[in-house]
Amino acid sequence: MCYLKENERIDDLEINGLKIIQNNNWFCFGIDSVLLSDFAKKIKNQAKVLDLGTGTGIISLLLCAKTNLKEIIGVEVQEEVCDMAKRTIKMNNLEDKFKIICSNIKDLNNNFEKNTFDAIVTNPPYKKENTGIKNLNMQKEISRHEILANLEDFIKISFDLLKDKGEFYMVHHPERLTDIMFLMRKYKIEPKVLRFVYSKKNKMPKLILIKGIKNGKSFLKVEPNLYIYNDEGGYTEEILRIYNKSNMIF
Amino acid sequence: MCYLKENERIDDLEINGLKIIQNNNWFCFGIDSVLLSDFAKKIKNQAKVLDLGTGTGIISLLLCAKTNLKEIIGVEVQEEVCDMAKRTIKMNNLEDKFKIICSNIKDLNNNFEKNTFDAIVTNPPYKKENTGIKNLNMQKEISRHEILANLEDFIKISFDLLKDKGEFYMVHHPERLTDIMFLMRKYKIEPKVLRFVYSKKNKMPKLILIKGIKNGKSFLKVEPNLYIYNDEGGYTEEILRIYNKSNMIF
Repeated sequence: MCYLKENERIDDLEINGLKIIQNNNWFCFGIDSVLLSDFAKKIKNQAKVLDLGTGTGIISLLLCAKTNLKEIIGVEVQEEVCDMAKRTIKMNNLEDKFKIICSNIKDLNNNFEKNTFDAIVTNPPYKKENTGIKNLNMQKEISRHEILANLEDFIKISFDLLKDKGEFYMVHHPERLTDIMFLMRKYKIEPKVLRFVYSKKNKMPKLILIKGIKNGKSFLKVEPNLYIYNDEGGYTEEILRIYNKSNMIF
Repeated sequence: MCYLKENERIDDLEINGLKIIQNNNWFCFGIDSVLLSDFAKKIKNQAKVLDLGTGTGIISLLLCAKTNLKEIIGVEVQEEVCDMAKRTIKMNNLEDKFKIICSNIKDLNNNFEKNTFDAIVTNPPYKKENTGIKNLNMQKEISRHEILANLEDFIKISFDLLKDKGEFYMVHHPERLTDIMFLMRKYKIEPKVLRFVYSKKNKMPKLILIKGIKNGKSFLKVEPNLYIYNDEGGYTEEILRIYNKSNMIF
């Protein structure tokens, strides 16, 4: 059976035999999604998980491989991207565990009762609507800029849909840290763990990984930095572990 | 002339011939104050500066040496500590530049018009009132725990007293980062620069240095980490530069 449409390709995730369909002209997954799935892998056994803005489904796929979650629901607003993610699920025989809902994340109160999920993971658009270089390609644009939903929408719906003490995991850009902390506190998802991701030592951080707890107490743990490259220009041991490899080029 | 009272000593700051009086039984300055004065040293020429919770006056003294500020006012709530700081000022002939006000920082709207200062520096108590190991000594207790004023009080009064686009510099603990960012955003002192201070690489950060701008735009720059010790257990070059030494033990 052929799962591919025009401009699409299949990539091997090299973990549990998983494969993913991506479109060469749209947003393809990056290291941020891989790092987030590793950061979130301690979610409890049999957890019911929501992946807001799932895109190709990469984070959910990796969580299916790395955890004992019961069910993960990926929400994606773009119909053609949903269609692609559904074919990826079928190709991996994950229909029982991983489902796709095609919806704007702002409308999810129509789909679920409040206090439903044990954990929420999200790799939302990083850029404010009117900032930065825009993509001419609408699919990439929606994935990268806050056009259809902004950071506040992602955090607000997460508060609604998480159970009390449920876990929220997000990857984002350091320049938005104040926005993130302000909104998480505002919507009672207390930041508990923060980790900065650096390309190399002595540079600016490229990404942040943040974990919050719904109705959690105020006390933040800043974890040791995650470095992508070592002093010799190769990948660090932690990156090789996360990618499940002894060495690699990507 | 003798400047000292019982249990006091004079320490040489080894910059511009400055000396400081400290009481062996009270709170003595640490590396946090030295790092903050270095972090804040780019305040503009002829700046009018406020130092909230000045204690021994260490931050103000170092800023007198490192910048071309016009005037710095140190606010301290403990009368006996104010007395000691005033003698330090006299001993250094800094009466024209550096003045002490003995007051709770919450009451400063009685002393100053709003929008008065170009910059505010502060090393406030780090611990919430009911957390952590408490000191039996009341002077140390007030310096370390939020007994007479809390973080919100420090940020609120800073907004009142800073000029538009005035600069706010603070040193604090990483575990309070969410509180800090939430309150700075709430009181319109937008976080602009954040720097983590580590004892060594691959450990948790010990301190944060944060700069905010009153009514500034939202965009945070996370600067490269500041490390105190190098891999060999000696001080890093940056620490030696900040302490104005080629090598040292402290």
